[in-house]
Amino acid sequence: MSQNLTRTNFEQLEKLSNRSRYVARSCKEIQDRYHEHEDGLYFLTTANGMVYQTFCDMTTAGGGWTLVASVHENSIYGRCTVGDRWSSQQGNNANLPDGDGNWSNRNTFGAAEGATSDDFKNPGYYEIRAEDMSVWHVPNNFPLEHWNLAAILRYHTENHFLRLYGGNLFQMFSQYPVRYNVGSPGNRGPAIPIVYDHGDKESTKMLYGPNPRGEFEPGFITFRAINNERAAMAICSGVKPVRGYNTEHYCIGGGGYFYTDQCGDFPSFDWDRLGREQGWSASKEMTEAAVLLFYR
Amino acid sequence: MSQNLTRTNFEQLEKLSNRSRYVARSCKEIQDRYHEHEDGLYFLTTANGMVYQTFCDMTTAGGGWTLVASVHENSIYGRCTVGDRWSSQQGNNANLPDGDGNWSNRNTFGAAEGATSDDFKNPGYYEIRAEDMSVWHVPNNFPLEHWNLAAILRYHTENHFLRLYGGNLFQMFSQYPVRYNVGSPGNRGPAIPIVYDHGDKESTKMLYGPNPRGEFEPGFITFRAINNERAAMAICSGVKPVRGYNTEHYCIGGGGYFYTDQCGDFPSFDWDRLGREQGWSASKEMTEAAVLLFYR
Amino acid sequence: MSQNLTRTNFEQLEKLSNRSRYVARSCKEIQDRYHEHEDGLYFLTTANGMVYQTFCDMTTAGGGWTLVASVHENSIYGRCTVGDRWSSQQGNNANLPDGDGNWSNRNTFGAAEGATSDDFKNPGYYEIRAEDMSVWHVPNNFPLEHWNLAAILRYHTENHFLRLYGGNLFQMFSQYPVRYNVGSPGNRGPAIPIVYDHGDKESTKMLYGPNPRGEFEPGFITFRAINNERAAMAICSGVKPVRGYNTEHYCIGGGGYFYTDQCGDFPSFDWDRLGREQGWSASKEMTEAAVLLFYR
Repeated sequence: MSQNLTRTNFEQLEKLSNRSRYVARSCKEIQDRYHEHEDGLYFLTTANGMVYQTFCDMTTAGGGWTLVASVHENSIYGRCTVGDRWSSQQGNNANLPDGDGNWSNRNTFGAAEGATSDDFKNPGYYEIRAEDMSVWHVPNNFPLEHWNLAAILRYHTENHFLRLYGGNLFQMFSQYPVRYNVGSPGNRGPAIPIVYDHGDKESTKMLYGPNPRGEFEPGFITFRAINNERAAMAICSGVKPVRGYNTEHYCIGGGGYFYTDQCGDFPSFDWDRLGREQGWSASKEMTEAAVLLFYR
Repeated sequence: MSQNLTRTNFEQLEKLSNRSRYVARSCKEIQDRYHEHEDGLYFLTTANGMVYQTFCDMTTAGGGWTLVASVHENSIYGRCTVGDRWSSQQGNNANLPDGDGNWSNRNTFGAAEGATSDDFKNPGYYEIRAEDMSVWHVPNNFPLEHWNLAAILRYHTENHFLRLYGGNLFQMFSQYPVRYNVGSPGNRGPAIPIVYDHGDKESTKMLYGPNPRGEFEPGFITFRAINNERAAMAICSGVKPVRGYNTEHYCIGGGGYFYTDQCGDFPSFDWDRLGREQGWSASKEMTEAAVLLFYR
Repeated sequence: MSQNLTRTNFEQLEKLSNRSRYVARSCKEIQDRYHEHEDGLYFLTTANGMVYQTFCDMTTAGGGWTLVASVHENSIYGRCTVGDRWSSQQGNNANLPDGDGNWSNRNTFGAAEGATSDDFKNPGYYEIRAEDMSVWHVPNNFPLEHWNLAAILRYHTENHFLRLYGGNLFQMFSQYPVRYNVGSPGNRGPAIPIVYDHGDKESTKMLYGPNPRGEFEPGFITFRAINNERAAMAICSGVKPVRGYNTEHYCIGGGGYFYTDQCGDFPSFDWDRLGREQGWSASKEMTEAAVLLFYR
């Protein structure tokens, strides 16, 4: 290794380290205050002074997007077992209608660099006041520097809908609890139109199974959907359920109770794994990609 | 949002960030060395140089209290399942008399801002040398800035008892192991008189069920209590068991083995959940509040 | 406590805190760039700028060793249950041949000071480019400042073997997956000769049971060993399997599926716990020691 290369590496590392001097609550503030326009890890500070690092997307549609969470399915065979932090780690249990409750509490877990290898949630999730969301579906275990290019689907909202719901998902899900038996089949929270950054309505449809395609309309992100058995899901990524409401096959996260064998972070994306109908199963790409959630 | 408000927020954030320059092993040292008197998050450093953030109570009884842990019951229906870090996550198992062993090891978990949403333990738990303890019972999921006001019970000791037991709970529980079958029914470690900061002896009694009220004396914090079936509990908050010794209904944390269906961080606070006697169950407020542990 | 002692403590703490100014990707770089030669905690930075603290061994065989992981058996009675992060937390399950997959993903967990109390994995594991490995077997729950002296076995490699396998275990295990049914009994990855820093070939043999001693040759570290039932293990510490291939009794970590009752981070180190043959069981010292992995 040449001495020059080593020096370059060190200077690059020093530049990244200097970001620890920034004081900002979101990637948008980093961009506005420090005129940074490079994607990568930055230091953020909560209103209470807690310091953490996360990934900022500084380029999509003007940039300033803060990664606040990722939903990663660690085992499509698990039924609300260890690692199902976005539904329940306590087994399928009607006594725990909220499951682990992470959609509406201040618990945090994981690290930004590992966001495609395991679940991730940082303080930004509950404390940033944002207007819009961006979502990336990134194949499991991809390194941060390739997330953007590797993503099988990327989109964002632009109608500032979060202003109406308290500025983040923590607040929204206080209004629309991700809880078993809280509403009737088909009941849902907001369904927000999306702008595609990678993919389109047609490719979105193909990511899910042929049967769900008859139930949803692509081009939206939908929050807190209730399925036919009154199980609650947190996010239908890329779609709006409009009929049928077997949302367990195309919506993620959830409360603590589902119809037999469906509980989990990607509840029933692999319905055929027990010899059931293949037509309801999501594509392998979708099932093996983490869902990264950004605010701006 | 006015430009002035934004500037004020930024200055407040910068002030909090500057606390990263402090070098101290406890909130007491922060107070003594840097003359800080505001409740909130501060940076601490272990003797080995590990840096972490935690909450300091700088006002109660002279201030200088370091938050070192919280005990949060994630599911009253779980029986030593995932999330029962202060007893066992391995099921009720006599082969594991110490359970997860977190009362007397150097494992850490959680974050200060999430201390009422999940279990929390920082390096201060095992490495600060303290004299007294303070305990807050804060309703689950409350934000840090309202903990003090929201607490249903707050008290501290003032007789410097920790001097006699190695300066912290890690050391004390080496002397009094939180282990199944280590002692006879009624056996216990120290029971220390408390000074109330919110609540009193009468309100303490009302937080537990009517039957336990005949077993304990309020006005104490008791460590390592053994119940009738030789299960070990870590802390009886606010009370001293004096007869009967069904401590599973009013003491928290524990080893890895209990009588059927009692294993858990709040072992049998909800005894009636299986149709058993309601008179042993703790109040809903108590069951749904995290127990925050401070040292000074 | 005298005023002088307090001042000394504070100066020592300040010295440790100043290490937060260092910018380096490994302990080797800390040593080369900042001429530090003291064992202890240092701050490292990943190529993406993520900052973390870990332990550096600055003395063994020239120093510059970065602690990147520890494998800790939390319950020898667990069968791929909670805490078995280096095999599987999902139970013994042939549908999950990779188990939790932590040998070849970017998930991180634990803290350096707790590396003998629970599993530990930091970003160095997947991102440092190294040449050699060092391994310490340290009794559970020992404090960092005594790890070196307390270790029951310490050794390192010196033939720069990691150069051939991508520079770290993350890369090596991409080539040699720790996955059930990926190879035939006796199949293995590299077996590298070791240099002892504490212990020798004879003492290594005595750490395992009498029956395994007939199967392995001491003086090596072996990677990705396949046993007779096609279960995959990650590391055979101190030994090379040469016949018999009941590696579940002397190799650690693994995929998600083993022969009945053997799944776990230390798969079948305690085979006699169910009344089976004692001759296969590892020594108590070995079973109750965490395995610390270093790179240089």
